[in-house]
Amino acid sequence: MTVMKRRLGLWNGLLALGLLVPLMARAQTDSNAQPYLERATKLIDRALQERQAYDMLRELTLTIGPRLSGSPQAAAAVEWGRQKLVQIGADSVWLQPVMVPRWVRGEVEEAEIIQSTIVGDHPLTVCALGGSVGTPEMGVIGEVIEVHDFDELARLGKKAIAGKIVFFNRPMDPAERNTFRAYGGAVNQRTRGAAEAAKYGAVAVLVRSMTTRLDDVPHTGGMRYIAGIPKIPAAAISTLDAEFLSRLLKREDHVRVRLRLSCETLPDVPSANVIGEIRGSEKPDEIIVIGGHLDSWDKGHGAHDDGAGCVQSIEALRLLRALGLHPKRTIRAVLFMNEENGLRGGREYARVARQQGWRHVAAIESDRGGFAPRGFSVDAPPAVVEKLARWAYLFEQIEAGVIRRGGGGADISPLKRQGVPTIGLMVDSHRYFDYHHSDNDTFDKVNERELELGAAMLAILSYVLAQEGL
Amino acid sequence: MTVMKRRLGLWNGLLALGLLVPLMARAQTDSNAQPYLERATKLIDRALQERQAYDMLRELTLTIGPRLSGSPQAAAAVEWGRQKLVQIGADSVWLQPVMVPRWVRGEVEEAEIIQSTIVGDHPLTVCALGGSVGTPEMGVIGEVIEVHDFDELARLGKKAIAGKIVFFNRPMDPAERNTFRAYGGAVNQRTRGAAEAAKYGAVAVLVRSMTTRLDDVPHTGGMRYIAGIPKIPAAAISTLDAEFLSRLLKREDHVRVRLRLSCETLPDVPSANVIGEIRGSEKPDEIIVIGGHLDSWDKGHGAHDDGAGCVQSIEALRLLRALGLHPKRTIRAVLFMNEENGLRGGREYARVARQQGWRHVAAIESDRGGFAPRGFSVDAPPAVVEKLARWAYLFEQIEAGVIRRGGGGADISPLKRQGVPTIGLMVDSHRYFDYHHSDNDTFDKVNERELELGAAMLAILSYVLAQEGL
Repeated sequence: MTVMKRRLGLWNGLLALGLLVPLMARAQTDSNAQPYLERATKLIDRALQERQAYDMLRELTLTIGPRLSGSPQAAAAVEWGRQKLVQIGADSVWLQPVMVPRWVRGEVEEAEIIQSTIVGDHPLTVCALGGSVGTPEMGVIGEVIEVHDFDELARLGKKAIAGKIVFFNRPMDPAERNTFRAYGGAVNQRTRGAAEAAKYGAVAVLVRSMTTRLDDVPHTGGMRYIAGIPKIPAAAISTLDAEFLSRLLKREDHVRVRLRLSCETLPDVPSANVIGEIRGSEKPDEIIVIGGHLDSWDKGHGAHDDGAGCVQSIEALRLLRALGLHPKRTIRAVLFMNEENGLRGGREYARVARQQGWRHVAAIESDRGGFAPRGFSVDAPPAVVEKLARWAYLFEQIEAGVIRRGGGGADISPLKRQGVPTIGLMVDSHRYFDYHHSDNDTFDKVNERELELGAAMLAILSYVLAQEGL
Repeated sequence: MTVMKRRLGLWNGLLALGLLVPLMARAQTDSNAQPYLERATKLIDRALQERQAYDMLRELTLTIGPRLSGSPQAAAAVEWGRQKLVQIGADSVWLQPVMVPRWVRGEVEEAEIIQSTIVGDHPLTVCALGGSVGTPEMGVIGEVIEVHDFDELARLGKKAIAGKIVFFNRPMDPAERNTFRAYGGAVNQRTRGAAEAAKYGAVAVLVRSMTTRLDDVPHTGGMRYIAGIPKIPAAAISTLDAEFLSRLLKREDHVRVRLRLSCETLPDVPSANVIGEIRGSEKPDEIIVIGGHLDSWDKGHGAHDDGAGCVQSIEALRLLRALGLHPKRTIRAVLFMNEENGLRGGREYARVARQQGWRHVAAIESDRGGFAPRGFSVDAPPAVVEKLARWAYLFEQIEAGVIRRGGGGADISPLKRQGVPTIGLMVDSHRYFDYHHSDNDTFDKVNERELELGAAMLAILSYVLAQEGL
């Protein structure tokens, strides 16, 4: 109210000065600017003052814990998410059933250098990659051969690889400005390394952990086998032990490692995406999705990946409610299930969307950690990106006004294939891979202000899109 | 080299197409742009690849530890800094002697609610504020009165305040977008609270910790007495216990607390600023200072505050050396002593500068933590800010291209009074006060990429200023 009065005073002053005409022309083109900026400011204020996303994340990560698809914790998280969406006053809340894979790590995951002339028997810090087959109880033993990419593997060929344990040791490029690009440049070793090595007769693979740090914890993550190629066990090795093993291989021939993994894939189990929405007052059939994924790996707490995105999506709805905003179109929070090892939730949501004829204006995902927002990356034609860029000024007050072409998010990628513009919350990337898929990804690694600002970003963009369309 | 060849190829292609003339006109106006951008890019690459600042910070924080002015650790840090600057190949390295205050915390710092009807005897988490007098061995006992600002204190007056322990409990405003502004809005309770309360006969003060979080550690920091007003003991209380105490005061009259502090101020001791420089090849008498402060509080490791700024300054020189760059003007790293409780180092540097007639082009300080850089804040007339803003494009590749008017830094503020433009490295501010002046400010809270990027920022800006002047 103070602001409005002040502005009226300004109008009167300008009238007196005869300056009103040119300003009115400008005011027409900017007719909606001031209300949106005011609302954006209030959404950010409330997010920073009330910090409900942080409290929700504490519950999700410390009370429930990590939430691997098909686990009891994942089931508990589904019920938790449903209750939260009811509590914050969503107009409707429902579960969308989906069958998910159930891979379990089991009790045993260990690797050991055996009978090295230099270090004798020496343990290595490893963990199974998600989806890996286990080893026989006594383990797999093989001579280790270090390889950096699939071309090198092919050059070495069956003669060098057969019967060996292939050690993929290409680091994420530290000079990449954005760590996700560095990840993109290294992660095929994890996702396809076992299948590629098995083509040449390897008996197992060790993959350097996908992290920009030198640390002593292994970072897990998804991997896939290829039909018709033998399934061999695959484990991540900590970056510190990767460096150690690499140095040893330079000094000693025929280094042998024993790898033991008790992981296995059980039958699929029922699970669900959790959905809650604020129904649009004028065009309820047009939907803006905001979301993250409720499942995580079984290491750490799944705090940054992706508890953050889930609580931000719920908090965004809560903030809109708290300010009494009534969006013209429907804003729907979706907590997707099984992003990490199957994407079943994202696929099922898109399948149902097509079946039901849901009309999505856009889908926005937060799945890059609960760090300080920088803006949005948009996976859509340039004209759509330009339209979105009109709203950049709403985010500049928190230095997050970058809107540019880029990826949306894994869970919403099946919607993209239906022509829906998908949008990813961009955040500061430097710390993400310190924590990603490892025991480091715990609640205490999340800063509440950074987390809350991400929630405000989702609330503001979804609200503007609900009012203006795209 | 690859880049150069590719560019020559481009030139030839353009010649063939007859497109060279308009491009040459453009190339002249941008004559220096490409070399600077290439060099900036290489400086960032090297910083991210070699990560020497992070290794230095590990030594400074984990081997030496916190470095309160006048302590043995501060003395060790001076020698460490001198050796580092020699090691990285500075042209000259020297110590600039300065006498510093020596305040010591002592063994005892405790507070306890006594004989509350609700909680009985109940400990509170406190620590002495830097510079506080101690209490008698048996402590100071007083009824607690909660106050939020100095106006309220004045309204309450002697009648309400005399004989009491004043509890300053105004939080940092969580809605401030930049936490330093929130700090600025609350910190007078810490710096002047004791003196203001003593005017009305208070026997001690408890000050809510200066942090944006609710946590269970007290955050210390400097405080000052005023001549002619009694010196009363002053302690920081953790934000969680501040909330607890405040709630108790709403439910119970006459809550009494006993405060015991064994801190004291000893005679001044000799110490030093540590200085190392790369001498300018053309105008060696014109100096660009880059710096941070070597002292810290005695809590945590002094990692973000301000080990980060010190190792970034050393690393900036190392990076320039590693790339074989020969600046035209002198680039001088200064590790200032005693920023936290006296600013003696900063004052002495400026005094000597005036005495010696040193000509400073600019002084750049990093003292806002080793977080992701956003740009630079410049304390100088608008024309100088505009000149600096020409170089923003060099920093945009790491999303740190904001150059705007704002504070330089405490240690370089005495130079500012001599007309030197002072410049502060701006970084993401959200996490700083999680750690600031507390046991939380440890090495593990620093991300190596974020830290290194700050070093690259100092290297790039100091190099450009060394070449171009200001």
